[in-house]
Amino acid sequence: MQGIDPNLLRLDVERWLGEDVGFGDVTTRLTIDSELVGRAELIFKQAGVVAGLPAAAEVFRAVDSRLEFKELYPDGSKVVVGSVVATVSGHLSSVLTAERLALNLIQRLSGIATKTAEFVKKTEGTKAKILDTRKTTPGLRYLEKYAVRVGGGQNHRFGLFDGVLIKDNHIAAAGGVVNAVTRARAAAPHTLVIEVEVNTMAELDQALSCGAGAILLDNMTTSQMTEAVLRIAGSVPVEASGNMSLDRVGEVAACGVDLISVGALTHSSPALDVSLDISIVN
Amino acid sequence: MQGIDPNLLRLDVERWLGEDVGFGDVTTRLTIDSELVGRAELIFKQAGVVAGLPAAAEVFRAVDSRLEFKELYPDGSKVVVGSVVATVSGHLSSVLTAERLALNLIQRLSGIATKTAEFVKKTEGTKAKILDTRKTTPGLRYLEKYAVRVGGGQNHRFGLFDGVLIKDNHIAAAGGVVNAVTRARAAAPHTLVIEVEVNTMAELDQALSCGAGAILLDNMTTSQMTEAVLRIAGSVPVEASGNMSLDRVGEVAACGVDLISVGALTHSSPALDVSLDISIVN
Amino acid sequence: MQGIDPNLLRLDVERWLGEDVGFGDVTTRLTIDSELVGRAELIFKQAGVVAGLPAAAEVFRAVDSRLEFKELYPDGSKVVVGSVVATVSGHLSSVLTAERLALNLIQRLSGIATKTAEFVKKTEGTKAKILDTRKTTPGLRYLEKYAVRVGGGQNHRFGLFDGVLIKDNHIAAAGGVVNAVTRARAAAPHTLVIEVEVNTMAELDQALSCGAGAILLDNMTTSQMTEAVLRIAGSVPVEASGNMSLDRVGEVAACGVDLISVGALTHSSPALDVSLDISIVN
Amino acid sequence: MQGIDPNLLRLDVERWLGEDVGFGDVTTRLTIDSELVGRAELIFKQAGVVAGLPAAAEVFRAVDSRLEFKELYPDGSKVVVGSVVATVSGHLSSVLTAERLALNLIQRLSGIATKTAEFVKKTEGTKAKILDTRKTTPGLRYLEKYAVRVGGGQNHRFGLFDGVLIKDNHIAAAGGVVNAVTRARAAAPHTLVIEVEVNTMAELDQALSCGAGAILLDNMTTSQMTEAVLRIAGSVPVEASGNMSLDRVGEVAACGVDLISVGALTHSSPALDVSLDISIVN
Amino acid sequence: MQGIDPNLLRLDVERWLGEDVGFGDVTTRLTIDSELVGRAELIFKQAGVVAGLPAAAEVFRAVDSRLEFKELYPDGSKVVVGSVVATVSGHLSSVLTAERLALNLIQRLSGIATKTAEFVKKTEGTKAKILDTRKTTPGLRYLEKYAVRVGGGQNHRFGLFDGVLIKDNHIAAAGGVVNAVTRARAAAPHTLVIEVEVNTMAELDQALSCGAGAILLDNMTTSQMTEAVLRIAGSVPVEASGNMSLDRVGEVAACGVDLISVGALTHSSPALDVSLDISIVN
Amino acid sequence: MQGIDPNLLRLDVERWLGEDVGFGDVTTRLTIDSELVGRAELIFKQAGVVAGLPAAAEVFRAVDSRLEFKELYPDGSKVVVGSVVATVSGHLSSVLTAERLALNLIQRLSGIATKTAEFVKKTEGTKAKILDTRKTTPGLRYLEKYAVRVGGGQNHRFGLFDGVLIKDNHIAAAGGVVNAVTRARAAAPHTLVIEVEVNTMAELDQALSCGAGAILLDNMTTSQMTEAVLRIAGSVPVEASGNMSLDRVGEVAACGVDLISVGALTHSSPALDVSLDISIVN
Repeated sequence: MQGIDPNLLRLDVERWLGEDVGFGDVTTRLTIDSELVGRAELIFKQAGVVAGLPAAAEVFRAVDSRLEFKELYPDGSKVVVGSVVATVSGHLSSVLTAERLALNLIQRLSGIATKTAEFVKKTEGTKAKILDTRKTTPGLRYLEKYAVRVGGGQNHRFGLFDGVLIKDNHIAAAGGVVNAVTRARAAAPHTLVIEVEVNTMAELDQALSCGAGAILLDNMTTSQMTEAVLRIAGSVPVEASGNMSLDRVGEVAACGVDLISVGALTHSSPALDVSLDISIVN
Repeated sequence: MQGIDPNLLRLDVERWLGEDVGFGDVTTRLTIDSELVGRAELIFKQAGVVAGLPAAAEVFRAVDSRLEFKELYPDGSKVVVGSVVATVSGHLSSVLTAERLALNLIQRLSGIATKTAEFVKKTEGTKAKILDTRKTTPGLRYLEKYAVRVGGGQNHRFGLFDGVLIKDNHIAAAGGVVNAVTRARAAAPHTLVIEVEVNTMAELDQALSCGAGAILLDNMTTSQMTEAVLRIAGSVPVEASGNMSLDRVGEVAACGVDLISVGALTHSSPALDVSLDISIVN
Repeated sequence: MQGIDPNLLRLDVERWLGEDVGFGDVTTRLTIDSELVGRAELIFKQAGVVAGLPAAAEVFRAVDSRLEFKELYPDGSKVVVGSVVATVSGHLSSVLTAERLALNLIQRLSGIATKTAEFVKKTEGTKAKILDTRKTTPGLRYLEKYAVRVGGGQNHRFGLFDGVLIKDNHIAAAGGVVNAVTRARAAAPHTLVIEVEVNTMAELDQALSCGAGAILLDNMTTSQMTEAVLRIAGSVPVEASGNMSLDRVGEVAACGVDLISVGALTHSSPALDVSLDISIVN
Repeated sequence: MQGIDPNLLRLDVERWLGEDVGFGDVTTRLTIDSELVGRAELIFKQAGVVAGLPAAAEVFRAVDSRLEFKELYPDGSKVVVGSVVATVSGHLSSVLTAERLALNLIQRLSGIATKTAEFVKKTEGTKAKILDTRKTTPGLRYLEKYAVRVGGGQNHRFGLFDGVLIKDNHIAAAGGVVNAVTRARAAAPHTLVIEVEVNTMAELDQALSCGAGAILLDNMTTSQMTEAVLRIAGSVPVEASGNMSLDRVGEVAACGVDLISVGALTHSSPALDVSLDISIVN
Repeated sequence: MQGIDPNLLRLDVERWLGEDVGFGDVTTRLTIDSELVGRAELIFKQAGVVAGLPAAAEVFRAVDSRLEFKELYPDGSKVVVGSVVATVSGHLSSVLTAERLALNLIQRLSGIATKTAEFVKKTEGTKAKILDTRKTTPGLRYLEKYAVRVGGGQNHRFGLFDGVLIKDNHIAAAGGVVNAVTRARAAAPHTLVIEVEVNTMAELDQALSCGAGAILLDNMTTSQMTEAVLRIAGSVPVEASGNMSLDRVGEVAACGVDLISVGALTHSSPALDVSLDISIVN
Repeated sequence: MQGIDPNLLRLDVERWLGEDVGFGDVTTRLTIDSELVGRAELIFKQAGVVAGLPAAAEVFRAVDSRLEFKELYPDGSKVVVGSVVATVSGHLSSVLTAERLALNLIQRLSGIATKTAEFVKKTEGTKAKILDTRKTTPGLRYLEKYAVRVGGGQNHRFGLFDGVLIKDNHIAAAGGVVNAVTRARAAAPHTLVIEVEVNTMAELDQALSCGAGAILLDNMTTSQMTEAVLRIAGSVPVEASGNMSLDRVGEVAACGVDLISVGALTHSSPALDVSLDISIVN
């Protein structure tokens, strides 16, 4: 799970287990012999891109460090309906206690990776990269951005601290594009690019004139974007944003933008259907 | 936000702010005069059921306790496109730092409440209640279950600790329905109902014969459910589950089940589109 | 330590060590050669039921993961005075730093298990089960309820979230038994039984008439309890509660109640006397 | 609550509420109108010394900061059966959710304070002070030691970090009293007294000869203690320890020791019976 | 304390108080009447730049929220020996418990701000800005970087997440400057500038040829830096780094570099001497 | 790392890594092949006393538990310029992510140990021991006091909880030395020595007359200290304090004091220059 802090994931998994298991899995304690061992399969009931297996592995480990988790189709694999993507062996009572959280993580992350891959496919043959946004689930951003990478997308800034993006509200509060950009350039860390959101050609010209390092075209029509790309002429990276759909993204990419950011990747991707089936070892 | 532990929400909001703001909102610090005050409006760009305003209020309070947050359409309101559901006044730099997390919470929770209300509407005139499941976002379960209540649904058990639900995997591991239920009845806390998931009429009969306190009909056809309801004959509550959609839920409710649980409420409801617009006070 | 979340126990043990050891065990650092190894015995100075060895093991592990802890009489064993229930081997400086917390846990939990076993013994030959209550030590509930199970008792609900128990104050606030139960039945999760505390036969009749799922007889005399059991006639489980003592519990059980809850198990069981003796390995 | 860190208490109360309330007080939510206000009385059902009201106040505040808590008999008061020691007013749903944790704290701490006062009374007219030990409940030490002070006792060291107490195991590991004390004196912080536990007159003489700063007489008979006090002759403080009971403590005090430490104060004091009764405001 | 997350500071202050106060300030409890009120002055015993007063205010608030803290010379003020920079009034026992942590914060942060101001003064009349580095005290980075800003410096990236700085070890591992920069450009977030550390003119030329966004000249002589500045010719920002001292920094600035980073600002600035004097209110 | 709680260090290291690495080391992810393995050397660029290697080891372990860390010159070694004090082998991407925090800890702690050793050397041939103070870095006290021990110094009390030190402000608030000491003696735990700070011979005489257990001479001249030592005549330990420098400390030691406390050890020791150099394994 490249780029994921293992300590952070471990602490989060422990907290999430607390949410689901609380002071005990009553049903399992009542019905399952604590010595019973077996094997379980994680099965994709829908086709899609696998994401989140290492997070699931951490869930099983946190519940019972003796469980053995094996990945059959590692993160990034595109699998067909019915694929067994991983197995877990050991005490069944532990497997069942961990099941729901493990599935919830895989279902959500695979849903995001799958949707991202669909957007990426629609822009094949163009230079446009598909980006995520900060419209993520509170507490899950690092995992959701990981799922976007797994699906072939690229990450925008992580949060408010690792990128300067001057948006409409900043421009309004600062008294216009020129004021905002000039203030930012005077004191910005030299390690951050200053990106500016523009809604009109006039704003675009102002942003370029005062040294914006990247341009975000917000909610523009295809023809506006085409014109904007022409005016920018490769001097700085251009990002398109605003209600991107699978239907429209190809057309947007064809305008020549460098980056297309899609909030829906993380705020509205449906979960993939994944289930866990156990078999008992005699 | 009835039923929500205020201390828990406060701690979560602080952690989620850490995720987004980290060691500082660079853009706002660079572009906005720290003394500038103003007012912002939270606007629904889609019609739906409002949910999450108190969580958003907590976000603004955590960033700057001097901000004033006013609810205009409290949680549970059904609003039309363009409705201003709340306003926040004070230092604009604080408002902008808090904006994204506040919106992410409202968008997700209102999405869930709105979808729940749609399901509830489809079952009007029947006795069936719409329930959530444990297929929630790790860390957000208490808020997502709150949103289901706001949308008119009812909560299933919160986690593994406050309900006994004997599912297919438990039955397999215990060696059949009768074994599983009998073991559970012998040692279950007297405060918990023993619910049993059944897939066939044979399993149903076994469950009823050994004293199940509630029955979950898993992935049955409409005619199977109708028959099951007849056999149960009101002796215990009946829950229907498995890939419920808006198209199908009315038909299921008409079978006479008491409860219909819908995983998609929490794992696949799209976010509602909500935005924040500022105006500067002179 | 079945039913105990290992991550929770680990975190608690680390916090409790912080309480006792703080920034260092001065005496041990000053007097014990840090290379000295040896063996220590955990000795029961009173007869009783052993409980808490796995918690003690976790304490030794947290102080020094190289220590070896061996259980000789596992939790649940009934031991005579002078029994060596466990040994721990390794660096003596680590053993001595861990000693007090390990003993404090064993002494308290074994005290509870021993007292529980005494109550259970007094009810032998009846169907009554001995239950704990929520009158536990803040922060130790999961361990204390575990000790009750070790002693042969059964757990009541864990907290306010996994059981509905309508008590006198709820009844007063709701305006009577019927109001309270009716409100509860209308909206309670179908996974929870609705138990009602009654103080008189009139309240009992009301509770039964409106569908209570279990009855708690609070502070009744033996003859009242006998009458109540007759009226309930096996329709729902019956719990007796209120100042249960070893002297009286047999008589109460003989009334035919199903459950007897005893607050004193967890709030007033005296600690068992347990000590740790070291021997040095040459 | 003098000497108690308010931030520590606040954090602990929030954690303990999590234990009892979890994700919600179901019974109260189902049965109590959330707007209903009233008043509750905290009533001592046994005579004793009040301790823990400020901790209870913190519980009510954490559940609902609008509740008003009034102390009628502050900590340290000796009250008769039936005394109303405090009242709390406001939303009854909040009062009922907080009730159990508030009572659990008061019952335990008042039990300790009451038992301490009994020991203190038995030693009146002597110079002996009653001390606690480190045999406390994990996580509650600061509150339990506070309760000992409320009952008229004095605190021994808090933990392993704020006192040097060379016990039998240290002496064994160091190869005798002289070795242990000499090593300790060479490197001990000059701010800590070096106290030595002795079991025989020979050990006592050794401890005195090598400069012990205080002496603990462990499990000695009355005549041994009398002799030890004579030998020490006021040169350093003398502490008596080991299975102190109310029956015996007066006799021990009469031997002339300065301090008597009693583990049972914190590990075996029975809880006092305290209840909360509500009345509804019309 | 602009740019400091108030929740983060609050939590840190509580933890740091735990370190110093632990389970109680024994001396103050023993010697000071808990009702005694008075006033204390925070006095600079050395001239310098004030930094950290809001952090000290948070310390006093955390110990006792009733204390009143008044800033007389706010952060950024240059004060002479003997200046009273702030006062605090209220219960003296609280003031004395908080004293050391409050002073430790002010002494360290004012030491950094003062040293930064000296470096800034040495570069007056040039375009060079003084930057900090990541050579900060673990856990205090956000406060130390704040102190650098207070002293007139500017912040480099906060951590490894908000800037790309390709250093000698990265270059070695990647197989040369060109490889490293090319890899980085292919996948770097568009919001981050790619800065490259170079040690020779050859490396500089390579870095410029493959599109580095900023150049760090590491441990170069003055004449090397002058030549490097000429070659770069304003195309990207230039940072000088490596054992900067007050003696040398003016000469470095005169080479025409844009930025000079100084590790010693945070890892070796001596603390300023600040004391707290109380006076008692009659 | 004797005397350091391993759990505390582990938790701190995880938090400090969070500060530096946040949600990812961008540069390393972009430039280093994640499979590349190699070896790195930790090199002292200045002569000094090594301190902090086990803390650095913990950093590498926390980032990647597969890294191998080898100490060549363990803590306490006096090394010359250019010494390789440790090596670390494994995945270079992990080594580089951990580098800065590991170095920051070693540089700071070795700086303190080195400075302490210089003070100790200046007092050779006298009985005076060099002590630290509470003027430490918030959050790092246990590590800084460890570094003082590594450098040959001895620790003063850790915090406000494990020593009684009556200072000028306490004396002022209590109404004089006699009042303060008398109050303290009446209620102090018998395990703590009562040390009194005096500024004049009159205060010294008062402190001795009422039974102070140790004397701190604050900011006295050499001749005053000589006289004070004569008056005390070995009856209690004597500590000298106040602006101790390497130039003056020998003269102070020669006055016959037992202890010399030096705040600068922890608040103003410059960091030692330590670097990490990698080599790649083919």
